Amino acid sequence: MKFRIGKDLKEKIEEIAEFVMEVFEEDYYLLHPCRDFLKTDEALRVRKSDRFYLTYKGPRVDEETKTRDEVEVEVKDPYRTLEIFKRLGFDVFAKVSKLRRIYRLGEFKICIDDVEGLGEFIEIEVEGELKDREKVLNLAEDLGLKDPITKSYLELILESNVNTNHV
Amino acid sequence: MKFRIGKDLKEKIEEIAEFVMEVFEEDYYLLHPCRDFLKTDEALRVRKSDRFYLTYKGPRVDEETKTRDEVEVEVKDPYRTLEIFKRLGFDVFAKVSKLRRIYRLGEFKICIDDVEGLGEFIEIEVEGELKDREKVLNLAEDLGLKDPITKSYLELILESNVNTNHV
Repeated sequence: MKFRIGKDLKEKIEEIAEFVMEVFEEDYYLLHPCRDFLKTDEALRVRKSDRFYLTYKGPRVDEETKTRDEVEVEVKDPYRTLEIFKRLGFDVFAKVSKLRRIYRLGEFKICIDDVEGLGEFIEIEVEGELKDREKVLNLAEDLGLKDPITKSYLELILESNVNTNHV
Repeated sequence: MKFRIGKDLKEKIEEIAEFVMEVFEEDYYLLHPCRDFLKTDEALRVRKSDRFYLTYKGPRVDEETKTRDEVEVEVKDPYRTLEIFKRLGFDVFAKVSKLRRIYRLGEFKICIDDVEGLGEFIEIEVEGELKDREKVLNLAEDLGLKDPITKSYLELILESNVNTNHV
């Protein structure tokens, strides 16, 4: 689950959770040559992080926690991967850059993301089955987090671009 | 360049060239969901070898030596890579398996391939620019190789399947 956060909560996480690592991530999102991903609610992403990944995201299976069916593979070179998809008719249509600080709190993985053009967010994940969703909801409540954001950073960036264009 | 070979030439290569390695390769060829690769003369391949690769092959730029424009990236898991492409609407339509013995002879890389369902072939490559094509032609002549095969193993296998089906 994902929420917008301010400075106070960030400091609180620093206190109670164990800092794991910081990583700068660049995500390239691709459009399919003959399928409308926005309509089918799918996504294809090439991620530059500490390593490089190609990820397919299927439609959301749970609206509240935005859980998706994912298939991911590590690749050795993000630019060659993008080049192959370009040759296949896929187009890079958006790029999402963020500085991600990762923490561990018991069984939870907590990420504080500073997203270029959007601001700061907290993401809470728990490894395991869908039934653990309840645990995430409880922790979010304990932290005083309200109004979970079900939209992806990609969607938020696309929305903010549209708004910018209309101003 | 590629030629069919018999036992004699195989023994000659063993004598004059330096054996490098032997590897069993399985190639999965994919069909594009909205482009006819057979008409555009392109190919998309996932290779299981000593490592795993995703390779895009563009149209042939030289009919005689079957040189193609290629973009390749190493991937960590061939099955996940195939799974991602299946989700994107690509279909595995052919599999080519071969035992490849690789040799080095000066600046040449020589492969002797035992291809499942097709028999034995020799492939000669030289690293570098297109102008080195002449060198490959000369070595092939020295070895008494005639009738280069410009078709890929994939094409040969598809042809042999068609023939089998018609008998």
